[in-house]
Amino acid sequence: MPLDDLAIDVDYVRRRIVYFLKNEFEKAGFEKAVIGLSGGLDSSTAFLLTVEALGGSNVIGISLPYKTTSNESIEDAKELAQTAGACWEIIDITPQIDAYFQRFPTDNIVQKGNKMARERMSILYDRAYVHGALVVGTGNKTEWLLGYTTRWGDSACDLAPLLDLYKTQVRQLAKAIGVPEKIIEKVPTAELWPGQTDEGELGFTYTEADQVLFYFVERGFTRKQLIAKGFSEELVDRIVERMKRMAYKRALPPYPRIY
Amino acid sequence: MPLDDLAIDVDYVRRRIVYFLKNEFEKAGFEKAVIGLSGGLDSSTAFLLTVEALGGSNVIGISLPYKTTSNESIEDAKELAQTAGACWEIIDITPQIDAYFQRFPTDNIVQKGNKMARERMSILYDRAYVHGALVVGTGNKTEWLLGYTTRWGDSACDLAPLLDLYKTQVRQLAKAIGVPEKIIEKVPTAELWPGQTDEGELGFTYTEADQVLFYFVERGFTRKQLIAKGFSEELVDRIVERMKRMAYKRALPPYPRIY
Repeated sequence: MPLDDLAIDVDYVRRRIVYFLKNEFEKAGFEKAVIGLSGGLDSSTAFLLTVEALGGSNVIGISLPYKTTSNESIEDAKELAQTAGACWEIIDITPQIDAYFQRFPTDNIVQKGNKMARERMSILYDRAYVHGALVVGTGNKTEWLLGYTTRWGDSACDLAPLLDLYKTQVRQLAKAIGVPEKIIEKVPTAELWPGQTDEGELGFTYTEADQVLFYFVERGFTRKQLIAKGFSEELVDRIVERMKRMAYKRALPPYPRIY
Repeated sequence: MPLDDLAIDVDYVRRRIVYFLKNEFEKAGFEKAVIGLSGGLDSSTAFLLTVEALGGSNVIGISLPYKTTSNESIEDAKELAQTAGACWEIIDITPQIDAYFQRFPTDNIVQKGNKMARERMSILYDRAYVHGALVVGTGNKTEWLLGYTTRWGDSACDLAPLLDLYKTQVRQLAKAIGVPEKIIEKVPTAELWPGQTDEGELGFTYTEADQVLFYFVERGFTRKQLIAKGFSEELVDRIVERMKRMAYKRALPPYPRIY
């Protein structure tokens, strides 16, 4: 099955996002941006687009490694920031995460990953306060629709330049704007445990997810039409049900209307 | 100027909120709630309403003191939870907050307060994960409209039962549902420094804010009409401008539309 429908006009999308960033920063009265850098595809792409919009000297990339983060991730992030003429900081989150889970021991890696994602958000906002900056998020549409995020963690930011792009589209854009090949080719992972991959955890590939989501969300296909198109029933149901179950993560908290 | 327009039918509002909570928990498939208890008006009110909806044994109140938190706040929260037959936990956030600011020293109390608010959110979600619970928020409409919150901190939750009630209306409701008089009579404070009060920090009283906001938001008064009603120009402008400036806090992060 070809991915042609997900093909984007990378020049248009690049201009669109850079224009969005310039505009939003001007409206908000800010010149500087803080971005968490994981050394992966999304954060590297969001970072270079923000550098294009604001200039390297106005962008602070921050690596927030935990002890399970590879040195390669840190080195790739550092190199990306330095090549772009941007600032780079590194803040190890291991002390506070380990201190917390010494008080509340657990082997549950999802639980730990959530605490880590929220700690990173909290630090990015603190550094943004110090630098007089906004926090630029790095989330994409695939993880947003699938709820493959930590609520009020990695999904929490001031501006979300990649949020309307599917993962495979971020990859197309990354190539066009000069994200290093070694970053583009990495297997997506949150690095919570050795060998963890996004696709292993989700149970399907990004290529599969993007195609099903694209036809379902952007083209309005029904379940029947998706299956007729050649996707397996099981795949369609898992993706669509996950998307529906995670709808709450894409909204502000509900409240009872009094007025 | 009478506050009559802000008077609520406490019996109706109480039923409305309890019904909302029961319904949302049922829809989400959860029976338990976690709520951060400050010992103040809003969290005590949200807590008792949640106990009414779910039963005391399904509600976990958590005190999250920093070293500047008074013993009185902790004792009042504990007593409230115990009287309601609910669970109570206490988790001191001083170690992680102080460890962080030893690495990044600052005297800026707002900056510290934001880190504390986000750490409390992060812990509430971690405890909710352990208990299989949802996080019930305690924010009211006055602080929501004024942006008198920490983004992704105290404003971040799964359900926000008080979000459509002005502060002075929460006080009316609190009396009706049996929040202890000593809590209702406290001067609202985040306890970030000795003598801090919400009203001192905002520069106007909740009574003033609620009246201006009520006529502006619920009744559609113009600036001119507000002034004709007897509010000072300076008060109207400060409140309305603050509300507009803080609009971004009441929305999810903006993103450039590709589709």
